[in-house]
Amino acid sequence: MDAMTFVLFGATGDLAKRKIFPALYRLYIDGKTPERFSIVGSGRREMNDAAFRQQVEQSLTAYSRRPADDRSKVDAFLELFRYCAADASVGTDYRKLLELVEKREGEQNIPQNRLFYLSVAPDFFDVIALHIAESGLGKGSGWKRLIIEKPFGHDLKSARRLNEKLSQAFEEDEVYRIDHYLGKPMVQNLEALEYANPVIQALWNNHYIANVQITASEIVGVEERAGYYDTSGAIRDMFQNHMLQLLMMIAMHLPHMTERDVRAGKRRIVESIRCVSPEEAGSSVVRGQYVAGEVQGKAVPGYTDEPGVAPSSQTDTFVAARLWLDDPFWEGVPFYIRTGKRLKEKSTRIVLEFKNPRGAMHLCGTEQCDPNLMIIEISPNVGVVLRLNSKNLLQEGKLEPIMVDFCANGKDIPEAYEILLSDALQGDATFFAHWNEVEQSWKWVQPVLEAFERNLVPLYSYPAGSNGPEAAGRLLEQDGFTWW
Amino acid sequence: MDAMTFVLFGATGDLAKRKIFPALYRLYIDGKTPERFSIVGSGRREMNDAAFRQQVEQSLTAYSRRPADDRSKVDAFLELFRYCAADASVGTDYRKLLELVEKREGEQNIPQNRLFYLSVAPDFFDVIALHIAESGLGKGSGWKRLIIEKPFGHDLKSARRLNEKLSQAFEEDEVYRIDHYLGKPMVQNLEALEYANPVIQALWNNHYIANVQITASEIVGVEERAGYYDTSGAIRDMFQNHMLQLLMMIAMHLPHMTERDVRAGKRRIVESIRCVSPEEAGSSVVRGQYVAGEVQGKAVPGYTDEPGVAPSSQTDTFVAARLWLDDPFWEGVPFYIRTGKRLKEKSTRIVLEFKNPRGAMHLCGTEQCDPNLMIIEISPNVGVVLRLNSKNLLQEGKLEPIMVDFCANGKDIPEAYEILLSDALQGDATFFAHWNEVEQSWKWVQPVLEAFERNLVPLYSYPAGSNGPEAAGRLLEQDGFTWW
Repeated sequence: MDAMTFVLFGATGDLAKRKIFPALYRLYIDGKTPERFSIVGSGRREMNDAAFRQQVEQSLTAYSRRPADDRSKVDAFLELFRYCAADASVGTDYRKLLELVEKREGEQNIPQNRLFYLSVAPDFFDVIALHIAESGLGKGSGWKRLIIEKPFGHDLKSARRLNEKLSQAFEEDEVYRIDHYLGKPMVQNLEALEYANPVIQALWNNHYIANVQITASEIVGVEERAGYYDTSGAIRDMFQNHMLQLLMMIAMHLPHMTERDVRAGKRRIVESIRCVSPEEAGSSVVRGQYVAGEVQGKAVPGYTDEPGVAPSSQTDTFVAARLWLDDPFWEGVPFYIRTGKRLKEKSTRIVLEFKNPRGAMHLCGTEQCDPNLMIIEISPNVGVVLRLNSKNLLQEGKLEPIMVDFCANGKDIPEAYEILLSDALQGDATFFAHWNEVEQSWKWVQPVLEAFERNLVPLYSYPAGSNGPEAAGRLLEQDGFTWW
Repeated sequence: MDAMTFVLFGATGDLAKRKIFPALYRLYIDGKTPERFSIVGSGRREMNDAAFRQQVEQSLTAYSRRPADDRSKVDAFLELFRYCAADASVGTDYRKLLELVEKREGEQNIPQNRLFYLSVAPDFFDVIALHIAESGLGKGSGWKRLIIEKPFGHDLKSARRLNEKLSQAFEEDEVYRIDHYLGKPMVQNLEALEYANPVIQALWNNHYIANVQITASEIVGVEERAGYYDTSGAIRDMFQNHMLQLLMMIAMHLPHMTERDVRAGKRRIVESIRCVSPEEAGSSVVRGQYVAGEVQGKAVPGYTDEPGVAPSSQTDTFVAARLWLDDPFWEGVPFYIRTGKRLKEKSTRIVLEFKNPRGAMHLCGTEQCDPNLMIIEISPNVGVVLRLNSKNLLQEGKLEPIMVDFCANGKDIPEAYEILLSDALQGDATFFAHWNEVEQSWKWVQPVLEAFERNLVPLYSYPAGSNGPEAAGRLLEQDGFTWW
């Protein structure tokens, strides 16, 4: 791995504390950071290196997946860190930052390879990127990389505008857009599951698959993010990015498993998603908003009673949709996606429902054959389940579903941020979102946003702690299916 | 279920005690015996009904899967039993038996439906069957059924002779030949697994399956059966019946799951087995005999040192073979079968090894892809395992096999005898061996027997506690495979 400097903007922020420092520490003790490695944190607050390191150490104590109890390792890790107070909108501050970066490069004999992690509000993405370019920070003799995390724009237009600005400072292949769902181990395993398993590969198409269901349900409400969430909604917060990324990952067919192939495969899928007009959206998109209810035995308020939410808010806290791919492998196979807050269970999973072969019904006698399912549990459970039909071994003859499963729960599975940071350190962009994917996703979402604004799609309410509005069930019932 | 009389020959024997009485009791308490039911036991020994019932009760205490502790149920069950001392070779004794059967039929208002279970040495099958016919026992106004258990002949000729004699007294559809492997719940589940599961059905042919491996390995030696076993060997004791029945069950393709279809399906498979000449047998059959070794940490003697075995015995205690089916579904798919005594583990299982699709190797990078396996555990473990390849979720990227499994171990799974007796009481012959199957199996075995006798197939020795002779491994290595 190349020696490099890791420049972290927003180093005093919440994401840095909860995710980035613990992930870096884990990579450090696992030997997955470069041998010569400099970490320079930057934030608005004035602080000296010692105070900054203390913050980093506190974050390890509070959030590290592995106890930070080896004093000599913790000390060596903290020794990598330096701090530079800087106002992201003030050009001269970048020169201070550059001086510190260069000083450390000199001290540690590190070539000018610089990775910039923008752990800041998205409004600052463009200005920081431009200042990086102008200040000389981005003009070293080595490589440069930029890590940013969603939201990438608020709609198609703003996303394009943001990208134009970023691309004045960084080439597309220098930009690492984090979608942390792509860092989840089971998501990264999807392609291996298909390609390394002839028995799955044989089934991975519209001859055998009846429909695909992608669910990301949360039990939490808006928490402290009401200000952001109320202008975003589930469609922007989850659907445009995570959900469509999961769709791309499950649907792509690849000749190989290289970065290039994955990106080409995802692009092919995302471009094949059939767009709907605002007028058509109502027949394939369901939106919902939670009202007061009970979650895990506790009474919780409705969305419009949450602190920071306008009482008249029309924001979607639940979205379900039926999507079609204009792709020969998936012709005739509906993809159902749903995501929402304050639902019954916390779960991200993909279910593939298989067709019953012609005439299979009567083989099961008078009973109806339950369809075979392949259930991919992404989080918090991690595993693969195949639902088959079997004779009940206790009561001869009676057919019933059995769960043939592999479960990795309870194992010490790496955090998405560890995996993605490790990839970025190595310059592997396979599991980052390409601009094509972001743009195409917005293309599908844009007319739906318009339909929401023009109220062409009814806003259903659903009680907190339920499975979402009943209309989401009707979406599948029309096609003869149900959510699993 | 029809009211009937269950006439048990060999009622004082070991099988009756260990298997038949406990199975009947279990069926009785589960309400799976006819409402009006008479059980008449017969044996050479003089005994009154009370003594016989005491024997039955002792058998329940010693061998019943469920405690026989409900006094009123046990008493009601025992009340069904009557005893008649009879010498199987003395015609007049059958008249005594007939009198008792008719008396009970009168008392209980049972029509003349009679099921005869011949739990006796096979030498008596024909004579008892003929006496049943001659005495009038088999000439009632209701139906009659005959249950017998292997061995059905010692070779093709003697099997045919036996069948001719039986068929003078019973029609083929009145004969229920027990192969207790067909009563094992997971064996009865094989067809359901295929037919009720489109994802398995899609894979169940030579496009996807590379080879099929059927193993029945025992850790025990000949125990007290040396006298019989030394004239039989693994080929007659296991291969001709159980192993070829498992082959039929796994290989058949059915339009429906009725008795008629199963029998037709099995017949089609057994008739498709390509016969070998005695001269060819050496290239596809391996025989072995165990020598002294260690089984589960305990030193055990070799076969020829077992009590009752001739020191010069050439009897096979292990047989492995490669079989080909001349059937379009299985063209090019070798079926490997092995069975033996004093092996390393006690296990009956079927493994389907899937082909790697063309070009799959390079998808796994430099590593070799492990083949997908479907492992059907029949006994003592009961379950279905699919071996897939997955990324190691702890170490990103590395492919390794995962076991996706369903395991029914530890559940209160019915005994084969319960299932088969229940079927016989209901007149369902689906899971009994038809004469066609028996005859065809002997047709494959006969030239192999000749090859053994003429010493055209080497007799390899293998240490007790091993996996059998190494030659059994070479049989697969020739084709590029290994035993799983």
